[in-house]
Amino acid sequence: MKPQTPLLDQVTLPEDLKRFSDPELAQIADELRVETISVVSETGGHLGAGLGVVELTVALHAVFEAPRDKIIWDVGHQSYPHKILTGRRARMRSLRQQDGLSGFTKRSESLFDPFGAAHSSTSISAALGFAVARDLGGVCEGGLGDVVAVIGDGAITAGMAYEAMNNAGHLKKRLFVVLNDNDMSIAPPVGAMREYLAGLYEGDTLQGAAAQAPSLDAGRAAGGTVFENLGFTYVGPIDGHNLAQMLPLLRELKERATGPVLLHVVTQKGKGYKPAEAAPDKAHATAKFDVSTGKQHKAQANAPSYTAVFAQALLQEAEADSRICAVTAAMPDGTGLNLFAERFPSRCFDVAIAEQHGVTFAAALAAGGMKPFCAIYSTFLQRGYDQVVHDVAIQRLPVRFAIDRAGLVGADGATHAGSFDIAFMANLPGMVVMAAADEAELKHMVATAAAYDEGPIAFRYPRGEAVGVELPERGRVLEIGKGRVVQAGARVALLSLGTRLEEVRRAAERLAARGIRPTIADARFAKPLDREMILDLAARHEVLITLEEGAVGGFGSHVAQLLAEEGVFDQGLTYRSMVLPDVFIDQASPKAMYDVAAMNAEQIEAKVLDVLGGDPV
Amino acid sequence: MKPQTPLLDQVTLPEDLKRFSDPELAQIADELRVETISVVSETGGHLGAGLGVVELTVALHAVFEAPRDKIIWDVGHQSYPHKILTGRRARMRSLRQQDGLSGFTKRSESLFDPFGAAHSSTSISAALGFAVARDLGGVCEGGLGDVVAVIGDGAITAGMAYEAMNNAGHLKKRLFVVLNDNDMSIAPPVGAMREYLAGLYEGDTLQGAAAQAPSLDAGRAAGGTVFENLGFTYVGPIDGHNLAQMLPLLRELKERATGPVLLHVVTQKGKGYKPAEAAPDKAHATAKFDVSTGKQHKAQANAPSYTAVFAQALLQEAEADSRICAVTAAMPDGTGLNLFAERFPSRCFDVAIAEQHGVTFAAALAAGGMKPFCAIYSTFLQRGYDQVVHDVAIQRLPVRFAIDRAGLVGADGATHAGSFDIAFMANLPGMVVMAAADEAELKHMVATAAAYDEGPIAFRYPRGEAVGVELPERGRVLEIGKGRVVQAGARVALLSLGTRLEEVRRAAERLAARGIRPTIADARFAKPLDREMILDLAARHEVLITLEEGAVGGFGSHVAQLLAEEGVFDQGLTYRSMVLPDVFIDQASPKAMYDVAAMNAEQIEAKVLDVLGGDPV
Repeated sequence: MKPQTPLLDQVTLPEDLKRFSDPELAQIADELRVETISVVSETGGHLGAGLGVVELTVALHAVFEAPRDKIIWDVGHQSYPHKILTGRRARMRSLRQQDGLSGFTKRSESLFDPFGAAHSSTSISAALGFAVARDLGGVCEGGLGDVVAVIGDGAITAGMAYEAMNNAGHLKKRLFVVLNDNDMSIAPPVGAMREYLAGLYEGDTLQGAAAQAPSLDAGRAAGGTVFENLGFTYVGPIDGHNLAQMLPLLRELKERATGPVLLHVVTQKGKGYKPAEAAPDKAHATAKFDVSTGKQHKAQANAPSYTAVFAQALLQEAEADSRICAVTAAMPDGTGLNLFAERFPSRCFDVAIAEQHGVTFAAALAAGGMKPFCAIYSTFLQRGYDQVVHDVAIQRLPVRFAIDRAGLVGADGATHAGSFDIAFMANLPGMVVMAAADEAELKHMVATAAAYDEGPIAFRYPRGEAVGVELPERGRVLEIGKGRVVQAGARVALLSLGTRLEEVRRAAERLAARGIRPTIADARFAKPLDREMILDLAARHEVLITLEEGAVGGFGSHVAQLLAEEGVFDQGLTYRSMVLPDVFIDQASPKAMYDVAAMNAEQIEAKVLDVLGGDPV
Repeated sequence: MKPQTPLLDQVTLPEDLKRFSDPELAQIADELRVETISVVSETGGHLGAGLGVVELTVALHAVFEAPRDKIIWDVGHQSYPHKILTGRRARMRSLRQQDGLSGFTKRSESLFDPFGAAHSSTSISAALGFAVARDLGGVCEGGLGDVVAVIGDGAITAGMAYEAMNNAGHLKKRLFVVLNDNDMSIAPPVGAMREYLAGLYEGDTLQGAAAQAPSLDAGRAAGGTVFENLGFTYVGPIDGHNLAQMLPLLRELKERATGPVLLHVVTQKGKGYKPAEAAPDKAHATAKFDVSTGKQHKAQANAPSYTAVFAQALLQEAEADSRICAVTAAMPDGTGLNLFAERFPSRCFDVAIAEQHGVTFAAALAAGGMKPFCAIYSTFLQRGYDQVVHDVAIQRLPVRFAIDRAGLVGADGATHAGSFDIAFMANLPGMVVMAAADEAELKHMVATAAAYDEGPIAFRYPRGEAVGVELPERGRVLEIGKGRVVQAGARVALLSLGTRLEEVRRAAERLAARGIRPTIADARFAKPLDREMILDLAARHEVLITLEEGAVGGFGSHVAQLLAEEGVFDQGLTYRSMVLPDVFIDQASPKAMYDVAAMNAEQIEAKVLDVLGGDPV
């Protein structure tokens, strides 16, 4: 049942907002909130962040002139109301689905998304780039006017936001940074900056703030805020749900600002929807839900998630070894480390959105005799890559990298895919790289990492539900660089790294019906390779096919290098390496994404038949 | 001629300093300065940074108790005086040479280097890791006492330093950060933070500061400094060349500090050596020199450096196209962009040590219609990797990456090697990756990058002197994805990417003497591959060998993937891929490092003979 939204129905594009009075804009905001809730109840997705910026979204679009003015939403998960106001309302119920709208901002989706996002803390850098391009006479579609970055108090803890402010304060270009301060990133934000921001409005009730609305001329902190120290004009704090206060202030800023301005807006994540207000971290990303009760329609799980298995295995190891500690970059829930933080608060570190620092911090923990597990999603580990190379690998420090969200991740799409970590980790000298084939293997790998003290070690595992195999009571320490043969067969060897193993098994079942019984092996290690096993597989089979949930340059490339160096290709070997294709794959179900990648059972079967000269299905 | 250093001669380890009075420590500092100058005059290396911290080094070692107390020098290029005081004086004249001392701090070199460095801005993260490990009961060699990070005002512009302070201010562990403020990183630092720091002592002469030495109880800025806002106790500024002021203050801090303390020390880069004081950027890294005159003994160059060729080629393109602009992360001289900044100041951006921001800023410049060239050393591009993936590649924005210092770099050693960029760039969908074989090729690639507007494009080139080939008047736009056959031969095809081509030619000359005339090809592109040329080379030769100045996972891996998919291995092909070996190679001459890597002419020849079944030389 769609909500009644009489005024919102008259808005197709932001320019339509200009026809309404300020009180009517407030009503539009209310309707936009209801519409956002209705959409997400049907699609699932990010809820709380969007609800918190409904009024801000209306205010920005009422005052600024997108697409000429560039409104850049940091992360982009709060952009659903923005999408509704910018010509995408009719497609909102395709959110996060295959061929549907992205759950983030995306350049290819709309001219109103001047700079896409999904990872956090990029918006000030992007805004500065547009502002400089504008002042240099740059030409782009839609034109180039004012630039507004909207960044959360969580995202501003990341170093690159500081780097951008340092540069923007120096260049003194006119640009606007709206600090959307809701005391919440995905989890409650941590760090000294958070405490500082809270101090800027401590004691001020928002009602009070409304009565004495700040303006350009009334800077607040006498000694200068951090932002003023960095060359910004600081305005705020202001109640981000009060349009009567925000609209005049934004108009004043639009009319009079000259250099970089930081507008401090205080909002509430989940605002206006009781279930989301009550548990803003839970409502950060939600399944489809019942609007009246807030109850989510979650599919019954058949197996625990890999994340939960990791978290429980790590807890078990940590019970037995007081040197084990854990590092997360603002993802305690996503990585499962919330359990660790509850049980061992003094040994669990949420460093904020700060992968660079987190990795080096973990390196020094290791140098100081601890056993740090650094749990970071594959795609976010890219943020700390230099620190992995320079501080961990070169120094051979035993940091354990728990790489969650490896491979294709589903609804979050290309920006969150963990496609590159095998390649960028496995070519570092001294790095051990494992990938779990199922949840029992993951448990073994946690135990292996806990026991391994000679240097850095990483293990990767995907998002979502595990296979459902029986879990051992306790993880077993694996022999470094040893794989396992899962099924002995003939002619064809399928050598899998990671969770494609299930699809390989399914492919083997299909092949069995055709009288082909392939050998199946689980490499376990992308590095060091199980040379003996691999050369043996190559020697005993006509065909060797590797599979991995990663781009070229990773496991298959290391295998090819081994086979080449050992002269295996000299005499001929039908070798293939199934890797993620050379495209960024848009959101869909993981299964559908692996169809695009041609890495599901049917396609593995087809590959085998193709190289054997049989009929591909 | 060695200087007279009677007191310093009595110091082998820091504990020896405890026997001296404060005035004697001042004399030791003077002797340490003279010894540092003497050493660097014989070895070359980083001079100005070390001279600026002579007194600070003496003071820290006189007050703290290394190796139990962990003194962590950010970057580490200022650590020569520290090395002299920590048992390494006798080996100082082996600095930066093969089998000699590193030019940076290095864990494997000394217990007094608790955390190695070379890239900047890691020290606060490391210090926090040690402090936390200490408080958790971590055990490490030497023990675990106080932790001191010494970080420059240039290095503190990097985001990870801010991330670390945000975390440290939150955790409230006792630790010391010494901000060594010399208004200079390698080039003069830029950004709003720089202006802010200068404001903290503007008007205060250092003499004045000495008269009213700050203490723990006398915080300075009324409204709170940025550091206080981040949870640190701020002490300073203080004259970093005045031991009479520093020693009592450090003793007070050591005795009384409880949480994180930031001590703001003002120093002069190059202090006490006139030629270095006069041109601190020039004396940042120096060749061997004459102590009395400061004149450097530079070897006569036979050819321009690759960096200079890049810089001039870019200028030429920028003269013709006003959309071209340039981005450097605090390396205007190192990248050659100082020339660009002089000629086109409004189109050249030094973003400070901020590769993350720099890459995203460039992405938005491109989105805003400009043609940004982002000139970053290979090893530092690791700092902006996620931004390359998320902001540039996924959005397919035409950012041009000029990747300097590709491959092995010589005296700076493993931390500065550009070993991984081919792998981590070439597996990104839509990325074009080129490598120049000589300076004429580099000029063509600059022109190609300037002309290419369909997506991101990167070109890499090494440190140092180019080959000496004739430079074309103007770069020519290369066809994307097309290599070139340099010499037609038989039996063996050598397919080179980058500047190994010269060694390949030399190897071919040696092979000619044995009656073998290999085909030589220059791939030019690691991505997209010249499929036609490569498949043709494979078809027409018994042996195909790829070469690249990079680790496994890069060009050779892409070639192997192509050959596998096309079924070339099915019938047999003697294929080898010569890549950097799976070790971090310590400093030496580039030639010697490539000997370790087995990638010089003799070794290429041996490889060919080996696979042909001939006698390796």
